[in-house]
Amino acid sequence: MNLTGDMLIGQQAVTGSRDAIQAINPATNERLEPAYAGGTQAEVERACELAWAAFDPYRETSLEARAKFLETIAEQIEALGDTLIERAVAESGLPQARIQGERGRTCGQLRLFARVVRDGEWLDVRVDPALPERQPMPRVDLRQRQIGLGPVVVFGASNFPLAFSVAGGDTASALAAGCPVIVKAHSAHPGTSELVGRAIQAAVKQCGLPEGVFSLLFGSGREVGQALVTDPRVKAAGFTGSRSGGLALWKAAQSRPEPIPFYAEMSSINPVFPLPAALEARGKEMGEAFVASLNMGAGQFCTNPGLVIAVKGPALDAFVAAAGEAVKASGSQTMLTPGIFEAYESGVKGLAGSGKAREIARGDKGDGPNQCQTGLFVTAAQDFLGDEALQAEVFGSTSLVVECADAAELKQVTEHLEGQLTITLQMDDADLDAARELLPTLERKAGRILVNGWPTGVEVCDAMVHGGPFPATSDSRTTSVGTAAIHRFLRPVCYQNLPDALLPEAIKQNNPLALKRLVDGKREG
Amino acid sequence: MNLTGDMLIGQQAVTGSRDAIQAINPATNERLEPAYAGGTQAEVERACELAWAAFDPYRETSLEARAKFLETIAEQIEALGDTLIERAVAESGLPQARIQGERGRTCGQLRLFARVVRDGEWLDVRVDPALPERQPMPRVDLRQRQIGLGPVVVFGASNFPLAFSVAGGDTASALAAGCPVIVKAHSAHPGTSELVGRAIQAAVKQCGLPEGVFSLLFGSGREVGQALVTDPRVKAAGFTGSRSGGLALWKAAQSRPEPIPFYAEMSSINPVFPLPAALEARGKEMGEAFVASLNMGAGQFCTNPGLVIAVKGPALDAFVAAAGEAVKASGSQTMLTPGIFEAYESGVKGLAGSGKAREIARGDKGDGPNQCQTGLFVTAAQDFLGDEALQAEVFGSTSLVVECADAAELKQVTEHLEGQLTITLQMDDADLDAARELLPTLERKAGRILVNGWPTGVEVCDAMVHGGPFPATSDSRTTSVGTAAIHRFLRPVCYQNLPDALLPEAIKQNNPLALKRLVDGKREG
Repeated sequence: MNLTGDMLIGQQAVTGSRDAIQAINPATNERLEPAYAGGTQAEVERACELAWAAFDPYRETSLEARAKFLETIAEQIEALGDTLIERAVAESGLPQARIQGERGRTCGQLRLFARVVRDGEWLDVRVDPALPERQPMPRVDLRQRQIGLGPVVVFGASNFPLAFSVAGGDTASALAAGCPVIVKAHSAHPGTSELVGRAIQAAVKQCGLPEGVFSLLFGSGREVGQALVTDPRVKAAGFTGSRSGGLALWKAAQSRPEPIPFYAEMSSINPVFPLPAALEARGKEMGEAFVASLNMGAGQFCTNPGLVIAVKGPALDAFVAAAGEAVKASGSQTMLTPGIFEAYESGVKGLAGSGKAREIARGDKGDGPNQCQTGLFVTAAQDFLGDEALQAEVFGSTSLVVECADAAELKQVTEHLEGQLTITLQMDDADLDAARELLPTLERKAGRILVNGWPTGVEVCDAMVHGGPFPATSDSRTTSVGTAAIHRFLRPVCYQNLPDALLPEAIKQNNPLALKRLVDGKREG
Repeated sequence: MNLTGDMLIGQQAVTGSRDAIQAINPATNERLEPAYAGGTQAEVERACELAWAAFDPYRETSLEARAKFLETIAEQIEALGDTLIERAVAESGLPQARIQGERGRTCGQLRLFARVVRDGEWLDVRVDPALPERQPMPRVDLRQRQIGLGPVVVFGASNFPLAFSVAGGDTASALAAGCPVIVKAHSAHPGTSELVGRAIQAAVKQCGLPEGVFSLLFGSGREVGQALVTDPRVKAAGFTGSRSGGLALWKAAQSRPEPIPFYAEMSSINPVFPLPAALEARGKEMGEAFVASLNMGAGQFCTNPGLVIAVKGPALDAFVAAAGEAVKASGSQTMLTPGIFEAYESGVKGLAGSGKAREIARGDKGDGPNQCQTGLFVTAAQDFLGDEALQAEVFGSTSLVVECADAAELKQVTEHLEGQLTITLQMDDADLDAARELLPTLERKAGRILVNGWPTGVEVCDAMVHGGPFPATSDSRTTSVGTAAIHRFLRPVCYQNLPDALLPEAIKQNNPLALKRLVDGKREG
C-alpha cells in the first residue's frame, strides 16, 4: 500500500490544506515521505457531520455485527503485514520486536472487545416489572439499558503508535460502545496512522456500516484538536499524552455550552516502595530488575517507574549501588521524537541542576541522534517534599530515589504524592504489617497496586485498571485499558411502560438476545 | 426533640457565627424558630478534617455493618415521628400526606441501598488469575474491586425536603459507596435538616462508626458551599437545584487543582408528545390527566411536564381545550419559598409578555401568600425555535404547548431540545411507526422515556434513571435515583500479585464474602 498523505473522512481520502506534518525517523533525524497537510474547520465539520449521521444507525447494529466489525479491523491491520511494522519502526525508533508485540496486543484488544460486545453484559440490562397490585401505589414497568454517548474523538499517543493510537484502546472501546470515532492522528507517526486508518476504513466498508463510523484527521497545531473537542456533535474524547496538552483540551471540553467527558491520561511517576525486609534480602537483584523496567521502551511507558521511595540505610544503599551499576551498563536507546528527547534532556538537567538531587549514575550516552541516556538520582525526603520540580514526571528512563529517615517520613512522602497510574511494593513476608499500614494510602493514590513486579507491563484483561486519581488521569472512575473501558462511552436510558414492539431488542420482554439481566432485584442468565 | 439551631459536625453540635437563616412558612410567611447561624471556613475545615479521618476506616467497614448503618438511619428518622412531619410541612408548604409519603420513600431508599450494599455487586469484583505458562508472556494475578471516591458533599434540594435532602438519595448512595458525607443544608428547611441530621448523627453513634462519617452545615450565602466544594479532601459532590446555582458550583469543582466529579441535577422541562392517533382517540382525557401531573406538588417536581409538543389540528385543539378547562379548575397551591414563588411569577410573566405565547387558561390565583396559579400557554413551533426564553424552565405548574405544522417540524423541534430528565409519548397502536421514528432522538435527549404515563412519579428501583444529557444534569453517565446511583461515588482499583494476606476481603482467593465475580472472563456466583 502506498501512503498518500491524505486524511480519511468517511470513505473519502481528502488532502489537507494547512501546514503539513512530516514524520521524522528519530534514529536518523531524516524526514519520511509523504507530508501530511493539516485539516481545516471544513474537514472537521465534514467528519463530525458524518459521525453524527452514523451514530443512530451504528449504535443499533446487532451485537454480532459490531463484534464482527472489531474483528475485521484486526484482520485488516494484520493484512498490512510488514508494511505496517516497518513504517511504525521508522516513525517511532522502537525496535521491531516491540512493534510486532504491540500489533499483537492491538489486534488482541480489538478481539477482546468483540467478545465483550457479544457477551452484552455492558448493556447492564435492568428490568423492574410492573406491579399493578402494589400498595399504596402500583409500579409501572421500568427497563434500563446502556447506549453510546455519541461520536467520540480519540487523540493518538506517541508512545504506543499502535496500541494507544488510531486503532488503540480508546478507539476499540468507543466502537464497542456504539460510538463513531474521529481520530486526531499524533504528528509523530502519520504514516502508521494512515495505514491503520485505511485498515479501519476498509473494515467499515466490508461490514457495510455507515461511512461516518470512522474518520482520521491530521493537523500540526492545536486547531484541529480544539475544533473537534468543541464541536457540539462530539460527545466524549479520549487522550493520552502530556499534562499540559491534556489539560488544555480538557478545559476546552469543559468550557463548551454542553460540557462533555474528556478522558485524559496525562502523567504518572509510578512510585516503587522497596520495603525493609525485601530490601535487606534482595536489594541487589531488586536494583537490577528495577533498572530493566526503567529502561523498557527508553522509559517512555506511561507506567515507567520514575520514583523509588524507601527508608535509608545500608540495605537501600545496596539497592542504589546495584541499580547504579545497571544504569551504567545501560545502552542508549532512540527516543520517539526529537521533541521528547529534548524534553527528557531538559528534565534530567533540571534534576541534576536542582542542587537537591545527587547523580548516582548515567548510562551510555550513545552517538546517534535522540538517544536516551539512562539516569539515576537520589534525594532526601524533605528536599522532595519541598520542591515541586523534583515531583514532576521526567518522561524517559531516569528515576529518582527518595531517602526517608523512617517509616513515618515515608508515610508523609506517600501522603504527599499526586495521583498515580501505579504504585509498586517490593516486599517479603516480614514486610506484611508495613504493607498493610500503607495500603489505604496507596489505594487513594493509584489505580493499580503491584507487589513484587514492575509497573511497565499492562495486561489487557477484565481486571486491569489503567487509570488513577488526578493528574494521572482526568477521571479516576474509569480505566483506559481493559474491558471496563467500554463504560466510559455509555450512559443509561430508562424505558417506562413502552409497548414491547417499541422496546429495543436488548430489553424486550422475552429477552431475545438472551442477555444477563437484573430482574426485580435478582440476577438472571 | 427541641430544635437548637446548631450545625452538626461529627458528634458535636456547633453554633455558627455568620448570618443566620430562618425558615419561613410559605403558607403564612411567618418566620419559624430557631435561627440557624451560618458556618465559617473553620467549621468547613473541621467537618472536612473529620470526614477525611473517617474515610479509610469507613470504607473498610463490613458490608453488614454498612447496611445496618443505613437501616439504623431509617429507624432513627421514623422515630422522629410527627415532629418531623409537622416541621417539614411548616417549612415547605407541602401537604402532610405528601410529606408522609416522602418520608416513606426516604426510608425505603435507605433500606434499598442496605440491600445493595449487602449484595456486594457494586464492588464489581473481577479476577484474572495468573497464567504462569502462557506464551509468549506469563500473566500475573490481577484483581479489581471498587472503592469509595472519598468524602462527598451533598447539597439539599428545596423541593423534596426529605427524599432529596439531608438523608436523601445522594446521601444514601454516597454512604452506601463507603464515602463520608457532609451536607450543606438547604436554607428553606433548616429545622427539617436539623431533625434528620440528628437522626443520622445518632445512627453513627449507635453503629460505632467514626464520627466524621456525617456532618451538617448551614450557610446563608455561597461561602460554605464554595468552601466545601473546593476543599482538597472533598472528592465528589451531589446537587439538585437551579441551573445557575448548579453551574456555579460545578465550575468551582472543575477549577480546583484536582477537579472532582460534581453531579448536578439542574433543569428539565420534560416534554410530552401526544402522538396523532392517541390525540384523536383520547385528547380530552389526556388533557385532564396532563394537568393533574402538571399540578403535582405545585409543579415543583424536577420531572414536571413543562412542555407539550404535537402536530396542530382539531385533535390537539381538543386536548388544549380540555387541559385549559382543567387548568381553570385548578386550585392554587402554596409554593416552597417566597423566592421560588417570585421566580415562578416572573417566569410566567415572561411567557405571557413574550408576544409569542398565547395564554389558554390560568387556575385559581388563591389568596394566601406564595400561591402557585396554574397556567397553560400555546406557541408556534417556529416561535419556540427562535426564542430561547420560551425554552427555559418555568419552575412551577405552568406548561407550554408547541404547535407543529407537521411531523417534520415536530422532528425539528425535538432535535432542537436541550437534554431532559424525561420525555413522554402519549400513543396508541396506530402511532407505533411515528414513535419508532422519534425514539432515537428521544434516547439522545433524555434519561427516561415514558409511554402513556406522566413523568412526575419517580420510582426508586434498579431500572430507574433520574438523569440525562446536559443541562438536565452535569453528567449523563449516571442517575441520582435508583440503585445505579451508587456508582457515582466509586472508582476501580486493580491489585496485581498481592499476597492473599494483604488483599481486601472482597477479592481474596477463596471469596470469603461469597461475592459475584467475573473470573477469567466468566461470571461466577
